[in-house]
Amino acid sequence: MVHIQILGNLDKGGNFVEDTQKKNFLFSFVISYTETCEIPGITVAGQNKEIIKFTPPADAEFLHYGSCKCIETIPMTPDGKPTPALLTKTALEVASIPHIVINAGSKIMPQIPYLETGIKSGKNISLEPALDRSDVLHAVDYGRIIGRTLASLTDCLVIGESIPGGTTTALAVLKGLGINAMVSSSMPQNPIELKKKVVFDALKRLGSDDPYEIVSNVGDPMIPLVAGMISSASQITNVMLAGGTQMAAVLAFGKSVGFNQDKLAIGTTSYIIEDKSANFVDTVTKIADVPILVVNPRLEHSKIAGLRAFSEGFVKEGAGAGGSMISAILKTGIDTQTLLELIEKEYRKII
Amino acid sequence: MVHIQILGNLDKGGNFVEDTQKKNFLFSFVISYTETCEIPGITVAGQNKEIIKFTPPADAEFLHYGSCKCIETIPMTPDGKPTPALLTKTALEVASIPHIVINAGSKIMPQIPYLETGIKSGKNISLEPALDRSDVLHAVDYGRIIGRTLASLTDCLVIGESIPGGTTTALAVLKGLGINAMVSSSMPQNPIELKKKVVFDALKRLGSDDPYEIVSNVGDPMIPLVAGMISSASQITNVMLAGGTQMAAVLAFGKSVGFNQDKLAIGTTSYIIEDKSANFVDTVTKIADVPILVVNPRLEHSKIAGLRAFSEGFVKEGAGAGGSMISAILKTGIDTQTLLELIEKEYRKII
Repeated sequence: MVHIQILGNLDKGGNFVEDTQKKNFLFSFVISYTETCEIPGITVAGQNKEIIKFTPPADAEFLHYGSCKCIETIPMTPDGKPTPALLTKTALEVASIPHIVINAGSKIMPQIPYLETGIKSGKNISLEPALDRSDVLHAVDYGRIIGRTLASLTDCLVIGESIPGGTTTALAVLKGLGINAMVSSSMPQNPIELKKKVVFDALKRLGSDDPYEIVSNVGDPMIPLVAGMISSASQITNVMLAGGTQMAAVLAFGKSVGFNQDKLAIGTTSYIIEDKSANFVDTVTKIADVPILVVNPRLEHSKIAGLRAFSEGFVKEGAGAGGSMISAILKTGIDTQTLLELIEKEYRKII
Repeated sequence: MVHIQILGNLDKGGNFVEDTQKKNFLFSFVISYTETCEIPGITVAGQNKEIIKFTPPADAEFLHYGSCKCIETIPMTPDGKPTPALLTKTALEVASIPHIVINAGSKIMPQIPYLETGIKSGKNISLEPALDRSDVLHAVDYGRIIGRTLASLTDCLVIGESIPGGTTTALAVLKGLGINAMVSSSMPQNPIELKKKVVFDALKRLGSDDPYEIVSNVGDPMIPLVAGMISSASQITNVMLAGGTQMAAVLAFGKSVGFNQDKLAIGTTSYIIEDKSANFVDTVTKIADVPILVVNPRLEHSKIAGLRAFSEGFVKEGAGAGGSMISAILKTGIDTQTLLELIEKEYRKII
């Protein structure tokens, strides 16, 4: 029995699982930055503005080294809850899934080899347009090239991301594209009112309903890059978008770039699905006929408080944690209980 | 009949061919820079100092786009003989072999996604040490990471390079390591005396026979990066070093880093083997028990003068041309006559 739940189109989800079981996976990890994360109170992916920008490269370093280079500890919430990259690393390692880091505008470069794209960081959408239109076109073009290359090297290309503040820009892009999504967050008291205000103010700038204009005005650099990646990659191999709301925004913009929805799935954690403040499955199925694969990391059963916090609404998803666990399960048949024990072991190593 | 000649250890060469026939290949293209190329008369990979530095990124762009972005034409010798990347591109394209660009200290970044390593350019070895010792260690470390990742994605990792002036630094490293190599060049009147003088002067600085000291003092950034790559990659999959003298230097330094010589081969053109001023097969077999696969591109049969020039001693090899053609032959069974026709077609496209 495979420990994966399928939501949305069950036939397509079943086909995706069948197509990728016992196959080779490649995890690509897109690190990026939007100055939107500097709005006080909007994210907890780091303790303050000066530290937030280190979260994406630190996550990337942690996936490889099991420790970070650009900061001394691993990324944590202020009260010590670890980055979901802990789940990602454990899953990739147990299943021997290779990974590659892609820089799409991170402020800090990771101390590890990474694919460089020349994409700039995104601006704070509460103050000004996020990107120039030419930046969006560049990101889509480079995404297409990267997607084509990586897809030709694997049976399933998994795409995860780390961009603090990214749920807010994702919400803005979804709303801008006419999708009435609610949005998840890495905080249990989701600062929905603050996010709504930021999004509302940003959307007032929109002068057109052109998707490229929407992403450049209220989005972030990760969205067009990953949209480009799925566009080319889904023509070649299976592609799993590993994440929550942000990947819904990628999907929504991706419809304008084009993709093969028979080769595409979303992979995420049960915490995203169960999040009462979001409506993830509805949002995704409204956008495209793409199945959603769900793993329950069972962190509520953990003996470790820092891990139980995930199941209590903290973090929930990020760094492609859900998709990585699903990939490990598909590739090796490992069960979630064993994965949990390995995650706890990894946790003890870093503390 | 496969149009590949095996030299060196025939058994190992035969095994390599058998292991990789009809399999998947990945071509990695390392672009780099040594200020040694700025010594007047030492290279023709570009018309002058200001243009030479564009050759590696332009080659990388050409492989992908079929044209260059950072310069207006494609890299040419002063009298219009095209870059060997023309052969590389044709071979990769006909065999649907994906490629990935790795930046190891190029002065100019290519306008295409590339793996960034944070490695600095090399200094002019006729004037000063090429690299700090810490640069060499960094390059080997990053090479190991890249080699491990790329090797896990393919049945055969092919490694080519573009570093103007690199035959001189290769010669210095070989001599420094006690290997009495002669050296090939991209000019028919190989400026052997000039190279010998540069190497002789550089070697005078050596205070020890430690290989890391030799590479940092008289080498270039490509050599330790690729040595790191073959070190990890050859533990996982088949690895082909695509090139001439420079890959001999990688092999020689690589012995200190460690590699699995049962999974390693050199792939090159017959022009390197036939070069009277070099002694390539002797040099390689003295270093390691690694087979040499050779393709005859038959350019002497071309109707196009710019291509015939290759067979007359110009260029001979570079941008992984030989190894790429061998990979295409191994993967698809294409014969060299058909390859030549495709190369001519590609040539006509760019002129």
